[in-house]
Amino acid sequence: MPQDPTSPVVSEYMARSVKASSMVRRMFEEGARLRAEHGAENVFDFSLGNPMLEPPPRFREAITELLADPPPGLHRYIPNAGLPETRAYVAGELREETGLEFGPEHVVMTCGAGGGLNVVLKALANPGDEILSPMPYFVEYDFYAANHGAHLVRAATDAEFQLDFDALDAALTGRTRAVIVNTPNNPTGVVYPEEKLRALGDWLRDASRRMGRPIVLISDEPYRKIVFDGLEAPSLFPFYDHTIVVTSHSKDLGLAAERVGYVALSPRIADAALLADALILANRILGFVNAPALMQRVLPLLKGQRVDVARYQALRDRMLPPLREMGYEVVKPGGAFFLFPRSPIPDDRAFARICQEQRLLIVPGSAFGGPGHFRIALCVEESVIDRALPVFEKVLRQVR
Amino acid sequence: MPQDPTSPVVSEYMARSVKASSMVRRMFEEGARLRAEHGAENVFDFSLGNPMLEPPPRFREAITELLADPPPGLHRYIPNAGLPETRAYVAGELREETGLEFGPEHVVMTCGAGGGLNVVLKALANPGDEILSPMPYFVEYDFYAANHGAHLVRAATDAEFQLDFDALDAALTGRTRAVIVNTPNNPTGVVYPEEKLRALGDWLRDASRRMGRPIVLISDEPYRKIVFDGLEAPSLFPFYDHTIVVTSHSKDLGLAAERVGYVALSPRIADAALLADALILANRILGFVNAPALMQRVLPLLKGQRVDVARYQALRDRMLPPLREMGYEVVKPGGAFFLFPRSPIPDDRAFARICQEQRLLIVPGSAFGGPGHFRIALCVEESVIDRALPVFEKVLRQVR
Repeated sequence: MPQDPTSPVVSEYMARSVKASSMVRRMFEEGARLRAEHGAENVFDFSLGNPMLEPPPRFREAITELLADPPPGLHRYIPNAGLPETRAYVAGELREETGLEFGPEHVVMTCGAGGGLNVVLKALANPGDEILSPMPYFVEYDFYAANHGAHLVRAATDAEFQLDFDALDAALTGRTRAVIVNTPNNPTGVVYPEEKLRALGDWLRDASRRMGRPIVLISDEPYRKIVFDGLEAPSLFPFYDHTIVVTSHSKDLGLAAERVGYVALSPRIADAALLADALILANRILGFVNAPALMQRVLPLLKGQRVDVARYQALRDRMLPPLREMGYEVVKPGGAFFLFPRSPIPDDRAFARICQEQRLLIVPGSAFGGPGHFRIALCVEESVIDRALPVFEKVLRQVR
Repeated sequence: MPQDPTSPVVSEYMARSVKASSMVRRMFEEGARLRAEHGAENVFDFSLGNPMLEPPPRFREAITELLADPPPGLHRYIPNAGLPETRAYVAGELREETGLEFGPEHVVMTCGAGGGLNVVLKALANPGDEILSPMPYFVEYDFYAANHGAHLVRAATDAEFQLDFDALDAALTGRTRAVIVNTPNNPTGVVYPEEKLRALGDWLRDASRRMGRPIVLISDEPYRKIVFDGLEAPSLFPFYDHTIVVTSHSKDLGLAAERVGYVALSPRIADAALLADALILANRILGFVNAPALMQRVLPLLKGQRVDVARYQALRDRMLPPLREMGYEVVKPGGAFFLFPRSPIPDDRAFARICQEQRLLIVPGSAFGGPGHFRIALCVEESVIDRALPVFEKVLRQVR
């Protein structure tokens, strides 16, 4: 067993966590080294899920208009829940979509979805509580749960990465406080269809009854508007009362670095008023206050706008068929901008190292609770895909 | 002993905290009710420390210029530590001021100072660690420490709210991880002069030696540029090696709601590289990622700019002499935008209620660990002060 790292100033947990997360960092550093040595055009970097599309042009127009004739106090502190008019706008959108009675009191603006999830977990979790997540899942969930004294419990999914209710059942305990789902999913791109969400609602009602208190459904849905083939990713609100949605405009408006998102509570959730107060207090005491005010002002001016989603679909369609033709097993993503193929050798970390030798950067599935797979982030130009495909073929031949 | 509130979904700690923080909320609600009933001009609201001054005009010009010809990927994810050029700019400013060898590797951009303090405490605190703070102190410190498994330990100050090293000594234990100071101070406005900072450095070196590990000095300094009478609030870096500065541009640039600040480590701090890594990881896993990118881009374009600080000084000078003349005991603030007079009756909460009956809204000092006092926030128009002064006189007569 390795000795825990010690530091005169850094906490034991964080020193350990820095060490544990250094694998990914070393990969990034190696990527930088490869680019320096071989030229950026000879490194095929599919490791970073950084939304590549620019915001819709209306975004910059709207900010410029706002600043040309700024409302007084535009940059002063606003209520901890966020700007009332922005919350009313979001509530209106949710009302329109779901038919449920959303009001501004059900919406709390947050510093992206990452901030939103921390705020939600802070509001919900008692020490030792368990947060159930299907596998694979966004790499930060373990940290988010641990930040607030809870821990993440993993449940397997089926071969298509769809929910497996037997696995959820087996993972359910008296300490299960919430189930967190992410559809379209990072890292798989899989979208849960309506019938799965209906079944999830049924399962949650039954599980809550068995456990004697409502198990909260947390829907982490920053990719919800990034869907392909004319499909929609359904809202989860209609299927279960105790639902909290956490989202951001990082992907659908291309504003990842501007940190604007929100938490929305179902008007039917248990103890809605106290929960809203707890979220608002968590927003404050975790130091977010809420989301940047300028971005909040702009949101209602961007109704119906989104990035050019067809571009992400085109990237998927450029890459998926040739990979399958070579012999990679890949579940077809219905949204987001990832592929999550099966690793051609069981050890996905070893496969990532082999790829890296060919200047092909992908992330081992183990990093996402999806061992035996690897993640390709489609946040690249078309030409990178074209030049990378022969390399994917080469590494496949090499390991077979 | 009151029963802990219970909720089927909200954690016990947060349900309790919401209940405990409802006093301040009730005051705000009462303020809103009074404004609705008597008209806003007949309510004298000194309760909110919301920086009232607009950003310097250059701020909006700079954003508009940026957006007219935006660098590609302006709103995409940036490194978790923040934009390299912004960190280099901040490091340059710190180098210039202190003569110490700051580089970008010593700077992490954060979601305001509130976000920065959470990031720092996450990086430092082992469960049960103690964070020492002189009294009175910013109302959120208790929460910030508790968020990361630590707790705040209070040390008395002298009659002028200056550091009392005997009180710090008495509060020091083997679990003391850090001392947090806030100069200029919220709620007192007091500035620690250079000789106090020098003595603090000496005390910290001695305390670290006695405890066998470096005690970290956290300087929370969002008001550092809001200083009066031609004085400066000295940097704390020169006085102690193990110093971390946390600040924001909420006050000096009037950007409170845009959530932009930073953490800076002394180049001489113990284990600087691991600590920087821990801060960067904390930024990520707490969900901040870092500060909004647009604001980070703008910062280097605002060198030397600040809000009209003379206006805050004028508000102090309009209010302090008449209050003293009436008989209020008030320590003269050297900066920030608060007065912290002694309550004319020992029970500051009772005094706040008496003021409220006269539509005069102030915050009891108990909320800041400063019982027997009350806080006046000078974030109001001059006319509010003029109309409020007779009311302050009236309540004083009433309680005597």
